[in-house]
Amino acid sequence: MTKPIWIKHATQLATLSSERKGPRSKEGMSELGLIEDGSIWMEAGLIQAVGTTKELEKLYADRMHEAEVFDATGHLVTPGLVDPHTHVVYGGSREREFEMRLEGATYMDIMNGGGGIHATTRMTREASEEELMEQTIRRLDSFLTHGVTTVEGKSGYGMNLETELKQLRVMKKLQEEHPIDLVATFMGAHAVPKDYKGREDEFVDHLINDMLPIVAEEKLAEFNDVFCEKGVFTPEQSERILKAGKKYGLIPKIHADEIEPYGGAELAAKIGAISAEHLLKASEEGIQAMAKSGTIACLLPATALYLREDAAPGRRMIDEGVAVAISTDCNPGSSPTTSMPLVMNLACISMRLTPAEALTAATYNAACAINRQEKIGSLEVGKQADVVLWNVENYQELQYLFGVNHVKTVWKNGVQVVNDKVKSDSKSLTGL
Amino acid sequence: MTKPIWIKHATQLATLSSERKGPRSKEGMSELGLIEDGSIWMEAGLIQAVGTTKELEKLYADRMHEAEVFDATGHLVTPGLVDPHTHVVYGGSREREFEMRLEGATYMDIMNGGGGIHATTRMTREASEEELMEQTIRRLDSFLTHGVTTVEGKSGYGMNLETELKQLRVMKKLQEEHPIDLVATFMGAHAVPKDYKGREDEFVDHLINDMLPIVAEEKLAEFNDVFCEKGVFTPEQSERILKAGKKYGLIPKIHADEIEPYGGAELAAKIGAISAEHLLKASEEGIQAMAKSGTIACLLPATALYLREDAAPGRRMIDEGVAVAISTDCNPGSSPTTSMPLVMNLACISMRLTPAEALTAATYNAACAINRQEKIGSLEVGKQADVVLWNVENYQELQYLFGVNHVKTVWKNGVQVVNDKVKSDSKSLTGL
Ligand SMILES: [Zn+2]
Ligand SMILES: [Zn+2]
Repeated sequence: MTKPIWIKHATQLATLSSERKGPRSKEGMSELGLIEDGSIWMEAGLIQAVGTTKELEKLYADRMHEAEVFDATGHLVTPGLVDPHTHVVYGGSREREFEMRLEGATYMDIMNGGGGIHATTRMTREASEEELMEQTIRRLDSFLTHGVTTVEGKSGYGMNLETELKQLRVMKKLQEEHPIDLVATFMGAHAVPKDYKGREDEFVDHLINDMLPIVAEEKLAEFNDVFCEKGVFTPEQSERILKAGKKYGLIPKIHADEIEPYGGAELAAKIGAISAEHLLKASEEGIQAMAKSGTIACLLPATALYLREDAAPGRRMIDEGVAVAISTDCNPGSSPTTSMPLVMNLACISMRLTPAEALTAATYNAACAINRQEKIGSLEVGKQADVVLWNVENYQELQYLFGVNHVKTVWKNGVQVVNDKVKSDSKSLTGL
Repeated sequence: MTKPIWIKHATQLATLSSERKGPRSKEGMSELGLIEDGSIWMEAGLIQAVGTTKELEKLYADRMHEAEVFDATGHLVTPGLVDPHTHVVYGGSREREFEMRLEGATYMDIMNGGGGIHATTRMTREASEEELMEQTIRRLDSFLTHGVTTVEGKSGYGMNLETELKQLRVMKKLQEEHPIDLVATFMGAHAVPKDYKGREDEFVDHLINDMLPIVAEEKLAEFNDVFCEKGVFTPEQSERILKAGKKYGLIPKIHADEIEPYGGAELAAKIGAISAEHLLKASEEGIQAMAKSGTIACLLPATALYLREDAAPGRRMIDEGVAVAISTDCNPGSSPTTSMPLVMNLACISMRLTPAEALTAATYNAACAINRQEKIGSLEVGKQADVVLWNVENYQELQYLFGVNHVKTVWKNGVQVVNDKVKSDSKSLTGL
């Protein structure tokens, strides 16, 4: 039997609990359910009690001595972060391509040198399942050290049945073997494979007729995603794919309006997608439609930074009533990072979210974007004991002191998986 | 007696050694002095040998057994990073102001609420020397964990003699007590104190006649810096201050052309400043003048990000022959961060430096900007044993896998001060 964990005297405990159910928008995104001198009792992988230290001292007066105690004086405590949009399962690395671009190589130079997404496709196809597992584990370890306890992952570097299934099976295995919870999305329509160029509709048929049924039958994914963008898949093609997935119980997601307004946000609202991704160039109508339909905007400010684009209009979306989540978009081309803390900072800096909104976007709303809000995303009795203790005193500092991973300790399902990275004393880095 | 430290089998050792002496520009910034299967022997605080593992195995055949050995297989090893521009000694924290701005408060709201630089001045004046020490130590600890082994620090939140001296004395004490090397700059002319508004020339007289002599007499600083910007100090006032400092042996630095072209870069070149800082809006003539005079451009891309400004034209400066260094600008208003790794990433992403140039800018050229290139900034025999072992395999990955602190182990003067933050195995995070 493992001991119960008892965190007490958290200078600030942001529970994220609220009366509201489902994705939060407008002022709902600022409700952090703050408790001063906060306390949590975790046991059997779940949160058993949350409140002030005084309240929990009363509640567990008889069992105090059983627990492993963590004094969180001087520290902020939050739910584990949730990353609702990654391409974390891929083969190889493209740092040399990054360097070539900065050395002045053109897009064509890179492509002629075998670079770009097709390089990752090639390396992902070539990697054995074991090699893919090993690479992904290292990335997941890094996510954990950045306070992330649940990660969505997409297939999409296969673009053929065999490799798409390999990516999804790797996620299924890692869900068993790695402490992080992995949530799988099928994204066969991530790009048009080279051999289908000019025959996009045929590829859509192939995906619908030959891939989706197997993914569904093997229960390899919960979500179905498509890259709806000019030159990739049209709104019509995207709709066909997402509707076909729905018949198999796969919930639609959509990469939309990243490069230009293309009706992706509108389609997301129309088809009842749980989330639409990127949205840098979403139209005003699209934003309004998403607000009405309750589609979550999953925004990726680290990708915008890496590509030197203006970030999505997160501030305006929240003001218009759209529920906003944020994510790393972890992928080898446009966002090779695992740092959700940096993504929260960028949500404030580049998208003008408030510190409270950024935290909601990285926890509760992110959980909603992968349909896990009943289990994670807030610290409430009965939910998974996914908890982060930070080297800052309050949620404002978490965003203000930017570019630094303030994670001190992480518990996943009530088990300590990351601890005391820097020092073992209880001092915070307040006033960095 | 402490044991010698022997690092061997570094997959990539970036020594930064070169035939060139002094600040590096153009192709000089890409000379990393790379060694495959690299090795370093550190003893008595200094680097005693650098080469391939084979070479050092021969050299130390008789003494191998004496050393503490680190196997760096799978790892990049570099010199300790150098941060040549910080305001690290300050009182208080301004996270609430950060939040207020994002909640829609105007500049005047903040000022009326007692915010802005004058808030830091007030809190720095109010803090005791011990309180300032304690806060600064926490920030320096964070610098160390980010691979930074030398930090320049400026006074300038006092704006009166007493507090300026307090800031400088804190640095002097910390130079004794903290592993990080601190290099002090007097910056009494950081802003115009409230009570001198409209009487700027009188303040300049006061600074020259009453402050500089004491700073010099007590040997509290090596450099003299001034904020030359419209509405702060004019080029003429800046020149007076820097020339006066020169008489006392203080080397000139200058905060220049951050908000608009104001002749700061030109003045830096003319007066023989060792470096000019910010330079977001430096004129073409100013850049040319700096290239000719050998004045180092100390660029601050994290500040630009935080303020949502376009970063300085680092790429163009290098191409024009200016030696570029980079820095966090660590300060409570416009850059509350200690992450030189993020600053390197931003140098690539926002300023289009190559990964090699970014590393040079954060090590050798940064050392030149604080006149320490004889002691630090590269891994060469006789230099201080300031060494970082990274969780990546090569310098390209260090920049490509962005937003993550890849530091694994840090040695300062041959003593291990940071270690194994994440895992104790020797695997790198390659392929993140
Ligand atoms: Zn994506
Ligand atoms: Zn500065």
